[in-house]
Amino acid sequence: MRLENVNSPADIKNFNVKQLDELAEEIRQFLIENLSVTGGHFGANLGVVELTLALHKVFNSPHDKLIWDVGHQAYVHKILTGRKSMFPTLRKFKGLSGFPKRSESEHDMFDVGHSSTSISAAVGYALARDLKKEKNHVVAVIGDGAMTGGMAFEAMNHVGHIGTDLIVVLNDNEMSIDPNVGAMSNYLAKIRTDSHYKNAKAEIQHVLQKIPTLGNKVAKGLERIKDSLKYLMVPGMLFEEFGFTYMGPIDGHNISLLLEAMEQAKSTKGPVLVHVVTTKGKGYAAAESSYDSGHFLNPVKIETGTPKSVPPIPTYSSVFGNTMIKLAEQDERIVAITPAMPSGSGLLKYAEKFPNRFFDVGIAEQHAATLAAGLACDGIRPVLSIYSTFMQRAYDQIIHDICIQNLPVTIAIDRAGLVGPDGETHQGAFDISFLRAIPNLTLMMPKDENELQHMLYTALQQNSPTAVRYPRGEGRGVPMDEQLREIPIGKSEILREGTSQVAILALGPMVQLAEKAADVLEQEGIFPMVVNMRFVKPLDHELLMDLAMRGYRLITVEEAATAGGMGSAILEFYAGNMISGVELFPIGLPDRFIEHGSVKELLESVGITVERIVEHTKRLAPKKRQHA
Amino acid sequence: MRLENVNSPADIKNFNVKQLDELAEEIRQFLIENLSVTGGHFGANLGVVELTLALHKVFNSPHDKLIWDVGHQAYVHKILTGRKSMFPTLRKFKGLSGFPKRSESEHDMFDVGHSSTSISAAVGYALARDLKKEKNHVVAVIGDGAMTGGMAFEAMNHVGHIGTDLIVVLNDNEMSIDPNVGAMSNYLAKIRTDSHYKNAKAEIQHVLQKIPTLGNKVAKGLERIKDSLKYLMVPGMLFEEFGFTYMGPIDGHNISLLLEAMEQAKSTKGPVLVHVVTTKGKGYAAAESSYDSGHFLNPVKIETGTPKSVPPIPTYSSVFGNTMIKLAEQDERIVAITPAMPSGSGLLKYAEKFPNRFFDVGIAEQHAATLAAGLACDGIRPVLSIYSTFMQRAYDQIIHDICIQNLPVTIAIDRAGLVGPDGETHQGAFDISFLRAIPNLTLMMPKDENELQHMLYTALQQNSPTAVRYPRGEGRGVPMDEQLREIPIGKSEILREGTSQVAILALGPMVQLAEKAADVLEQEGIFPMVVNMRFVKPLDHELLMDLAMRGYRLITVEEAATAGGMGSAILEFYAGNMISGVELFPIGLPDRFIEHGSVKELLESVGITVERIVEHTKRLAPKKRQHA
Repeated sequence: MRLENVNSPADIKNFNVKQLDELAEEIRQFLIENLSVTGGHFGANLGVVELTLALHKVFNSPHDKLIWDVGHQAYVHKILTGRKSMFPTLRKFKGLSGFPKRSESEHDMFDVGHSSTSISAAVGYALARDLKKEKNHVVAVIGDGAMTGGMAFEAMNHVGHIGTDLIVVLNDNEMSIDPNVGAMSNYLAKIRTDSHYKNAKAEIQHVLQKIPTLGNKVAKGLERIKDSLKYLMVPGMLFEEFGFTYMGPIDGHNISLLLEAMEQAKSTKGPVLVHVVTTKGKGYAAAESSYDSGHFLNPVKIETGTPKSVPPIPTYSSVFGNTMIKLAEQDERIVAITPAMPSGSGLLKYAEKFPNRFFDVGIAEQHAATLAAGLACDGIRPVLSIYSTFMQRAYDQIIHDICIQNLPVTIAIDRAGLVGPDGETHQGAFDISFLRAIPNLTLMMPKDENELQHMLYTALQQNSPTAVRYPRGEGRGVPMDEQLREIPIGKSEILREGTSQVAILALGPMVQLAEKAADVLEQEGIFPMVVNMRFVKPLDHELLMDLAMRGYRLITVEEAATAGGMGSAILEFYAGNMISGVELFPIGLPDRFIEHGSVKELLESVGITVERIVEHTKRLAPKKRQHA
Repeated sequence: MRLENVNSPADIKNFNVKQLDELAEEIRQFLIENLSVTGGHFGANLGVVELTLALHKVFNSPHDKLIWDVGHQAYVHKILTGRKSMFPTLRKFKGLSGFPKRSESEHDMFDVGHSSTSISAAVGYALARDLKKEKNHVVAVIGDGAMTGGMAFEAMNHVGHIGTDLIVVLNDNEMSIDPNVGAMSNYLAKIRTDSHYKNAKAEIQHVLQKIPTLGNKVAKGLERIKDSLKYLMVPGMLFEEFGFTYMGPIDGHNISLLLEAMEQAKSTKGPVLVHVVTTKGKGYAAAESSYDSGHFLNPVKIETGTPKSVPPIPTYSSVFGNTMIKLAEQDERIVAITPAMPSGSGLLKYAEKFPNRFFDVGIAEQHAATLAAGLACDGIRPVLSIYSTFMQRAYDQIIHDICIQNLPVTIAIDRAGLVGPDGETHQGAFDISFLRAIPNLTLMMPKDENELQHMLYTALQQNSPTAVRYPRGEGRGVPMDEQLREIPIGKSEILREGTSQVAILALGPMVQLAEKAADVLEQEGIFPMVVNMRFVKPLDHELLMDLAMRGYRLITVEEAATAGGMGSAILEFYAGNMISGVELFPIGLPDRFIEHGSVKELLESVGITVERIVEHTKRLAPKKRQHA
């Protein structure tokens, strides 16, 4: 077993191609065995085994900088950089992160989780090197999907202009780019990076001038080539015209070709783009043949690739998807937009049923939001389905294109609140804070999956922008109403009236915690009011006024940043209305980034618990001193 | 005079080329005369006179949809669509907006102000048309600068895939794109859009196969062409491979050629890109020859193009620029990054002095932020200079790339607060709300330009992300200290101690209002404490605790959204620390988008005034009832 003795990149430096091939096989087995137990990003990692080996063989990490886009394909990199023993803890609380993390290893150059950042980060490293007059190679590894993200182009445009040494490895797993890319021959790579290539363009111009202008048919064809060549050489979008030397495509599972290409890239001056073609899920049949090439798998049985357990309760995402079908059947103006998350968002069935009213725009959150605005301008009712954390990418477009124009766009915010094992980069912690400052926007969150369907219906009845946030994972298993109904905007739901002059104002799944806390408290003779707030914006002014009049003390509970959250909105409401003396204690996420782990563990670690609600309700409730 | 009788696009439908040329000349005179009085975006509008005429002649607005990117080049469009009499009110309070506005005219299809949104919006209109089975043309007009914004690529990538009818007019004013584009001949446009073109690619392939592989030198050259052709035809960045039919480049001041091109584009199926070359500032020598081609001019003398008045007090931007020079001289790790705003941000002198430590990345806010993160990872101290409203584009990158990694990046937020005549899309209203929820970030604002330089120095001493926000326009004219000094993080400045158990907590330029209010109040025997808060995050906990202990009532004043603003942060602080009973009244921007006008008019319209501070301080201060 070779893998046993590989604990750092130095350990593979002397391996020959055959030995690397053997190691690749062992790593694949290691991944399959480990991930079938822990779960994790299968497909992408199985696809980059040989590529990662080639990179660590040719480049000298951490002196040379390897920067992984998105980062969920960095498992092999982690194995090679001394972390293989930690794989049983992958994505677990206090365990190995599923993404590169500077705090975890000197070989991890840039924390990541979102897509399309690697080239920008690499340009930063390259310019830092130049400023410090140091010598090292900087390599960004980016997928073809991530290449559709606008910021990747912004970075290419910049580095092409500067012309500094930088290598971009385009890992093309044929999931997004036109399949005929895969038909390109490896031969071209050699031609384009050999010494002749540098002068090729000048030579082409030269040769073009020599083509005679004749009257016969072949010459006419040549004329057309001449024109087309000129056209194709217009400065603009071409990699080459961006200032990159292009190499590829290269078979990403052929270590020998990969090594050769990386060596060539290493010795080429200026920005280089190495186009590598890989197969997502390579070497694991169940992954290769699945819809998304086994992008992410929960723990599975190795033999079949089938999940070990099937959740009995529908997820919020699937309820969203089903509701979209219902809504679209009733109103032909409704369309759905997703930035590259059709399956994760629960929209596969919808897409099958309404292919013309479904737009997967690729990893392009900015475009997705403004596209929705454009559609809404012309009478369509778009639903933009987007994860909370990725919505951060569309913040300006939500303000500038959707809300300033007060357009009827519904934003369905999936993965709002803690998402668990994906950690810091993926927690949906900030959406309440950054959305509720935006004028014209209505922001709500359902207490369960049944209310989710009613809220989506409600959102689509409005003539203004609306956002419905809901958590990752399973619902509560409540019965689903057949008939969709409109919930009055800005109206909360009192679940328990209570008698103890204290109210727990809870949002979304936190309602369940509030009810459990009330159960505990009732045992002790304290009867809090329990409110399902439903709306963060507009707030239920009537309820809040009433509570103030009646001298209630308030606990707010939300799975979102306390800074700028719902509790904060309620404090502002009272202050702005010159109502003083309302005691309120806000429970929400603290002012730090929340690491990975199970949602349950994380909630406990930040003090969003039944116990804490009980504690503060007791503190505020009895108020014996009032009667003293 | 033709212009006199032009009040709608219908009025130019029968004009011939000569008549349109005459009208163009009149429109140019109209613009020069009007804008020299009101100020406004000169350069871009002078550049698109003929283009706009051609668009309105060939297309049938509002049935056909004309969508202007950025929008500051839509003046000619406004003149042609019945708004010429409003030009004396341009960008004034309640007057004509400087940007397209749906509420202003049925010919304005999409509100805009930020860059690179037009193609996304146009795709929305095109898809809405298709869904409704209607027939109309959709045209997006986008500049070469705006094309560098990532979301423009995201949109091209999407529409190319869909293949619906859509026209993108690339208005290339040679400000950003490589000048040799301008050397392309108009002739190519005709060839490429004639009927043969459709089959050209297939024919090229066919002809390629016929080129024999010979041993002589010419044949070798042809071989190389063959390879290069294949390379150039790789699906990817090419307009054509994005699915667009390319036309151009076309002389954007030749109406006859423009009309021909637009007619051809109109009859071409699928997405078309019309590449039009224009001269920014065309027809006004002072603009054509200026640094930025007269991008924006304040009121000027027509003859010379020189400003009517020169501000005697330095702007915050220029103080920022000068401080950057000082800082960079002292610390060679410091670099500056701007997304296409070198002059507006006050960085021209710096850029001249430190060309290797200055990065203008184009209109690319996302890349700018992550580039800063990359640089900071490798020991550089980047200062990201960015306007508050444009920073919304980099929100995810600030969270995900800068703050999660806790990197020492300084964000210099220009145009924070109200910016005035640019209106809704440009007000820096939300940055406090969306930034202060982010862990690890320090957020401050100086009371004057002298404090700005100290804050920048302070920011660069920290080993974590910092943001310094400052307003548009002139400072207060205070003396500038020679020596830069560090301000203790999270420490406010008490300007007047006061004696009336009421404190006005003000941020940035609002300190001046607070002092004026205190002057008025002192006349009436009320002596408020006046505090220059300096830090929104972290807050001055010591001061706030002390004020609470001493039973103070508080007024907060900030030129930022009240929702989630500094006042809100202080309320949260007390609530989270279980301190109840502190009365606080927050003064800030209300929950609506703020239109255009002078900053003074706007502040009055939203009630951020000395009078209102006085009123609420009086309400809270005397508290005779306390002693009753």
